[in-house]
Amino acid sequence: MTTSKSAVTRVPGFRAVGVACGLKQSGNPDLALILANRACTAAAVFTTNAFKAAPVLYDLALMERTGGKLQAVLINAGNANAVTGSQGLADAEQMARWTESACQLPVDTVFVMSTGVIGQKMPMDKIATGILSVADSIFTEAGQQGHAAAEAIMTTDLVPKEAFVQTTVEGRPVHLGGMAKGSGMIHPNLATMLAVVVTDAAIEPLALEAALKQAVGCTFNRISVDGDTSTNDTVLVLASGQAGNPLISMQSVQSPLFETFTSALTEVCAVLAKAVARDGEGATKLVEITVAGAATEAEAEAAAKTVATSPLMKTALFGNDPNWGRALAAIGRSGATVDPNRTSLWLGDFQLVADGEPLPFDAVAAHDWLAQTDEVKLIANLGVGRARATVWTCDLSYKYVEINAEYHT
Amino acid sequence: MTTSKSAVTRVPGFRAVGVACGLKQSGNPDLALILANRACTAAAVFTTNAFKAAPVLYDLALMERTGGKLQAVLINAGNANAVTGSQGLADAEQMARWTESACQLPVDTVFVMSTGVIGQKMPMDKIATGILSVADSIFTEAGQQGHAAAEAIMTTDLVPKEAFVQTTVEGRPVHLGGMAKGSGMIHPNLATMLAVVVTDAAIEPLALEAALKQAVGCTFNRISVDGDTSTNDTVLVLASGQAGNPLISMQSVQSPLFETFTSALTEVCAVLAKAVARDGEGATKLVEITVAGAATEAEAEAAAKTVATSPLMKTALFGNDPNWGRALAAIGRSGATVDPNRTSLWLGDFQLVADGEPLPFDAVAAHDWLAQTDEVKLIANLGVGRARATVWTCDLSYKYVEINAEYHT
Repeated sequence: MTTSKSAVTRVPGFRAVGVACGLKQSGNPDLALILANRACTAAAVFTTNAFKAAPVLYDLALMERTGGKLQAVLINAGNANAVTGSQGLADAEQMARWTESACQLPVDTVFVMSTGVIGQKMPMDKIATGILSVADSIFTEAGQQGHAAAEAIMTTDLVPKEAFVQTTVEGRPVHLGGMAKGSGMIHPNLATMLAVVVTDAAIEPLALEAALKQAVGCTFNRISVDGDTSTNDTVLVLASGQAGNPLISMQSVQSPLFETFTSALTEVCAVLAKAVARDGEGATKLVEITVAGAATEAEAEAAAKTVATSPLMKTALFGNDPNWGRALAAIGRSGATVDPNRTSLWLGDFQLVADGEPLPFDAVAAHDWLAQTDEVKLIANLGVGRARATVWTCDLSYKYVEINAEYHT
Repeated sequence: MTTSKSAVTRVPGFRAVGVACGLKQSGNPDLALILANRACTAAAVFTTNAFKAAPVLYDLALMERTGGKLQAVLINAGNANAVTGSQGLADAEQMARWTESACQLPVDTVFVMSTGVIGQKMPMDKIATGILSVADSIFTEAGQQGHAAAEAIMTTDLVPKEAFVQTTVEGRPVHLGGMAKGSGMIHPNLATMLAVVVTDAAIEPLALEAALKQAVGCTFNRISVDGDTSTNDTVLVLASGQAGNPLISMQSVQSPLFETFTSALTEVCAVLAKAVARDGEGATKLVEITVAGAATEAEAEAAAKTVATSPLMKTALFGNDPNWGRALAAIGRSGATVDPNRTSLWLGDFQLVADGEPLPFDAVAAHDWLAQTDEVKLIANLGVGRARATVWTCDLSYKYVEINAEYHT
């Protein structure tokens, strides 16, 4: 992987821009447009939350209607357009129509994403002005600055999140560029996670969907900041086919062709997902939790996620405390099959438990190591099988409480 | 209900005492003994955590062995005797043997509970001295001070938790007195919840077990401080029969006899459970969450518990922010069946959402009300059925992070 700055516009055939249209009180950029120079194959995964935001409902119907042929995505930060009733749905549709019109695109080729305040009507006058502005500037020099788009979708994210990978599919160079925003929020929103990956690969819709599901399953679905699932979470991938590689189809799902593409897509998603976890609200550390020796992968994932969402474990890590009892206790309530007498635990290079017995270890050295590192690995072996899973999270700090308690509606 | 101070010793035929034996670094009382003047019928429920502490494993076997005939319970704070291997099991058994010997009780009549540090060997020399001390003082005046026992089992609890109820079973006065310790911990322990209820009611073992399960199901199983389940959680009830009421048996499970007793037991458990939630680590508010209009009670409970464990919701309440979007989002990811267009939400007297549409409300007034109250009620109606459930939790404050991050192993 090379530098990832302006990742989405480093993929040939894609333009992107970010502008300020007044949705964020800070006056920072808050509207992004990504535009392909041709119709793309698209696939998307959405939040499983029963209260889906208006843009999610719009996009679900759009994907159904078009079979996933899209050319652009419009993303705003500052207002989530969630729990906004029928007016919210009409507004989401209007945002797509206006973008199509401003960019001279056919109807039903624009995907819409929103993140920000819940339960407030979208200020459509600002959106209208913003859409004219992104459509104006995207065909200028500014349209090559993917970085500006990545910045425009940030809410309380501290850094923009971008990832770029170049690979080769049967001799043809193929590029993938992604951007994401994570677990920051403009109060009173949720920790909405949005991501877009664009690629010039030639791939059929069903194969793209299969690749996306596989990539998301072990990346975006394996991160947690605080266990809350947003009404707006969405991951979209657009594939233009401009790379001219042999078409990746469902027939090739077992082939190196598909594997090469999926592993590159997984790499992009992994970089973005870990960046989201690392930049979790108030986080001081990226925490990687691996559960091995589990009966099934689902149990390994459940156990790892239970540790990843345990406030007791996360506050201990914030306090640089090698508090392994909290990790074991979280695993113990996760529902995963464990053998208490065969469970072992490591924190970084320190083995803390071997076959259920606590080991003597240098607690001061462990504390000092935790205090110095911003990346912690915790590994548990349940001693009952061969399955494993890794999840990523962050610690729970005073800052998390501040961010989520001190901004008022 | 009358005053609850020294609740357990206000039940005729029960003595209790608390002493300091050096397990707590603070030097505060840390060993409690409750003793009945005759063999009691006993029932208990235990943590579902797969990593059960040694005293839990000992008690499980004891209840199996004896069918639940007990006369005393020894409880220490300061060391959880959890993840202590085979030595831990031997130590738990030794604590029971020493207590039986010191109080001249038959073997297998003493139940043992521990709370405190995980993974450290129980200091049995201190325990030995402590047991002699509680056995000495329990037959003196001190043995009538149930309050001292309730204080001795505290860890980072701010207040002791006691509850007393007197009822009448077919003309006979029956008394129930309980004490509990909650979601405070001596680092690096978990938020262990221990509770003991004693009563002079005459009741058969199976009926007592049925009554306890019913009472716990809607009280202790409906509270959450941070979603973590301890390795040591235990609720024990001892019934001496000294009240001389007609024996409550399984044949009377449908009768007023059983109902009267179970409702009194539920009342004691509810007072203790709410006290545990209110005294959650760092809590500034008791939060009562009711989900109504659910398809099933299990779904109502799942939805309410998801709100109760949402860090986003809990930090908002700490910040006195009527952030209803977070409550809806938590319900939306709980797995409960919802109809987004028929969901309604109330916070105290403020209705925030009606049939899926946000209502205009006085956010400043809601904030001011939240800032003044230490007891918040949140009600959601999912609009799909008639089932309901209530759970209790607390808010998530800076103090929670401090308590759990700033004490080091």
